[in-house]
Amino acid sequence: MVASLFIIKGTLNNMNDNASNGDDPMADIKSNVINAKSAAIMLSAADTKAKDNALNAMADALDASRKKIIDANEKDMSAALKMKEAGELTDSMVKRLIVNNEKMDGMIAGIKDVIKLKDPAGETMSTMELDDGLTLYQIRCPIGLIGVIFESRPDVVPQVMSLCLKSGNAVVFKGGKEASNTNKAIFDVLSEAAYRTGIPKGSFCLMETREDVSAILEMDGQIDLLIPRGSNEFVRYIQSNTKIPVLGHAAGICHVYVDADADTEKALSVSLDSKIQYPAVCNAVENLLVNKAIAKAFLPKMVELFVNNGVEVRADEETIGIVGKDKVKKAKTADWDTEYNDMIISIKMVDSLDEAIDFINKHGSKHTDSIVTENMRNALRFSELVDSSSVLVNASTRFSDGFRYGKGAEVGISTNKVHSRGPVGMEGLMIYKYVLVGNGHIVKDYAGKNAKKFKHVAIDKDFKL
Amino acid sequence: MVASLFIIKGTLNNMNDNASNGDDPMADIKSNVINAKSAAIMLSAADTKAKDNALNAMADALDASRKKIIDANEKDMSAALKMKEAGELTDSMVKRLIVNNEKMDGMIAGIKDVIKLKDPAGETMSTMELDDGLTLYQIRCPIGLIGVIFESRPDVVPQVMSLCLKSGNAVVFKGGKEASNTNKAIFDVLSEAAYRTGIPKGSFCLMETREDVSAILEMDGQIDLLIPRGSNEFVRYIQSNTKIPVLGHAAGICHVYVDADADTEKALSVSLDSKIQYPAVCNAVENLLVNKAIAKAFLPKMVELFVNNGVEVRADEETIGIVGKDKVKKAKTADWDTEYNDMIISIKMVDSLDEAIDFINKHGSKHTDSIVTENMRNALRFSELVDSSSVLVNASTRFSDGFRYGKGAEVGISTNKVHSRGPVGMEGLMIYKYVLVGNGHIVKDYAGKNAKKFKHVAIDKDFKL
Repeated sequence: MVASLFIIKGTLNNMNDNASNGDDPMADIKSNVINAKSAAIMLSAADTKAKDNALNAMADALDASRKKIIDANEKDMSAALKMKEAGELTDSMVKRLIVNNEKMDGMIAGIKDVIKLKDPAGETMSTMELDDGLTLYQIRCPIGLIGVIFESRPDVVPQVMSLCLKSGNAVVFKGGKEASNTNKAIFDVLSEAAYRTGIPKGSFCLMETREDVSAILEMDGQIDLLIPRGSNEFVRYIQSNTKIPVLGHAAGICHVYVDADADTEKALSVSLDSKIQYPAVCNAVENLLVNKAIAKAFLPKMVELFVNNGVEVRADEETIGIVGKDKVKKAKTADWDTEYNDMIISIKMVDSLDEAIDFINKHGSKHTDSIVTENMRNALRFSELVDSSSVLVNASTRFSDGFRYGKGAEVGISTNKVHSRGPVGMEGLMIYKYVLVGNGHIVKDYAGKNAKKFKHVAIDKDFKL
Repeated sequence: MVASLFIIKGTLNNMNDNASNGDDPMADIKSNVINAKSAAIMLSAADTKAKDNALNAMADALDASRKKIIDANEKDMSAALKMKEAGELTDSMVKRLIVNNEKMDGMIAGIKDVIKLKDPAGETMSTMELDDGLTLYQIRCPIGLIGVIFESRPDVVPQVMSLCLKSGNAVVFKGGKEASNTNKAIFDVLSEAAYRTGIPKGSFCLMETREDVSAILEMDGQIDLLIPRGSNEFVRYIQSNTKIPVLGHAAGICHVYVDADADTEKALSVSLDSKIQYPAVCNAVENLLVNKAIAKAFLPKMVELFVNNGVEVRADEETIGIVGKDKVKKAKTADWDTEYNDMIISIKMVDSLDEAIDFINKHGSKHTDSIVTENMRNALRFSELVDSSSVLVNASTRFSDGFRYGKGAEVGISTNKVHSRGPVGMEGLMIYKYVLVGNGHIVKDYAGKNAKKFKHVAIDKDFKL
């Protein structure tokens, strides 16, 4: 907590006596994760200064270890290039694997950005006087132990480790085999630097690549939240194979709806940007819905713009009726539920705003959906009834990410309906506890005849003992 | 949302076209739950007045239907008494099943209390100007469709239905067979009253008793959050057999720790109240930890007080060394992990504050743990390092419930580490969505050379279109 009297000094007594090192091949993993769970308790109480000192040391250590890390990455890269030739890795996976000096710059800058973020741990969220001398504080605190499972991208390690540290969470990483040397080099540099400044040993844990991902998925007794970073299939696999809450999204089927009252120029520009500004990502648009009242004025220009920019258009009968068969393909049923992540878009005409809303709630993935309209009543209805984590009015779907939403750093984008939704920053790593401070208060006094009455008055007072 | 222009009028086009009624015995259930999911969308946008009107009508209808409901309950009661004789129902389950005029009064008063609660839906939680004319609103909204699985207690229906309605959530109930007639009578009265005032039909759904609980557990595509109400075994079963997030707790192993610097009188009083004020519930204390420095002064009085009040004491060797063998039993290993829910307590001596913290984090259930001390540094360390949803200082563990915490009504007590923790009121039924309002803004303008810069300024402005 921010106001902690207790800078971390060692760990609590007996904390690690559950940890074992027997013959069970899983014993080491379990032992490390149990240690991380214990360290999480101490880390949760670390003060802001201690955490920022560690982050500074981590940034410096990364800077001083460029050669070591880039050398390790070269080993992974040469193996990866062979795997690519054998068709076992895609081009984009190999690209994400590279760590060069420029990427190192980015990692270091990322850690320094996290230092600037406000420490959320220990904030008093609400205070209520239950009765004289009996005060209830709701205090923001870290969740505990975060599990991070990721493919390729070794830059996940500094990014997530720094966010977890700043928020007071311990973290266990499980990376892909293809990046094992790089991950280990980065992890060792960062964790050693943090421990040297007094961060509880064991707060960070990297599972070896020989260990199966199922090991981490089964530790629902230890790991409080899982963050997967990888393809949709990867996230879906994790969601389906663990009891641990998973923060993330398995699909990004985003929509733009061009309303009857849309400004045509805005609609053209927003739709094009939503598709082509970066088509490979989850917040790019896949389905464009167009109100029939504006279809004739809008669709021919839109389709021409898409085609001129290299976008393949798949359209319903009604759209083809307006734009002709030459420039578009006929959409199949499956197209309305497909995340292309590519220069392809499906276009469908709708009769009404409500048909668009209904279509989006059925075919979308609760990620990001945008309406283009000058009619603010329609915009309000859309924003109320579209059940997505981000609903946009006259803006490109590409805006919905953590950086653009001003979160500083992104844990991920969540399409969950509980805990955290949409682009998630450090707040997704936080929960709260209640601290009730009395002076020997007992419940008997508030029960039966002559019972004392509660006051239940919200007051403006930060937690202090 | 509070400021909605759109009082509910019917449902959206085509909303129910997934619903089927074929030969599959599950088809009806699925069809009802899919309808509820659709209704949830409309209900989420209902304004406060519409929801309060419905709640008033529900309270009135309950009052006017006392005879019908009590008659239905008599059927369940006579069957239940036979089951009790056959040993199939416990005495407390039968007791919770009774609905008489007094219980009806309580249900009606409960609904009226919910009317007084502030409508959380539509609240602007935060607003950020991303750039000129591009504003990001974070808006509180209902989660969607809540599943409630409960044993006995028909009063769960009015309580949860009113909380869900006020917060804009649809709800599907699955009650126990033993209360089927009563549940159906109450459900029909309440849902018909709500629908008459314009609440979207299908917002409330009661699964028939012939349907298995597994049906509801498997609907992770429809149900967003499950709230189980019943025994620990019941909750544990549900947690282990569904992918839907579950809000609740499967155990309540609570501790009182009497510190070296405790005031003895407060320690005696808080410990006794924590055990005997209502021993059958989850927030009663099960393990009492006593610092060795105060043990001789405290333990003989404490044990005498427990024994005089009919509490069986199970103690470790060190405690027996002080209080003798006459009044206490020797605790077995299993005692430290047992929720008695009864007039039994385990007492253990500890060497230090940190040993107590460590013991609680290992043996507790993250529910409620209390320290008795006059030393505020120790109280702070305890409150920081005990990883429980409620941490109490000089107060009885019995305080940790929704009513005493001033929440008006309680959804449940959660020992989860994400979403909601501790006693949960209506806030546990809420999540948020982001609404980004622009004027044709596109991401291309914020990328590459000459990129526009984001402002990212938090502003104090409620959502309005």
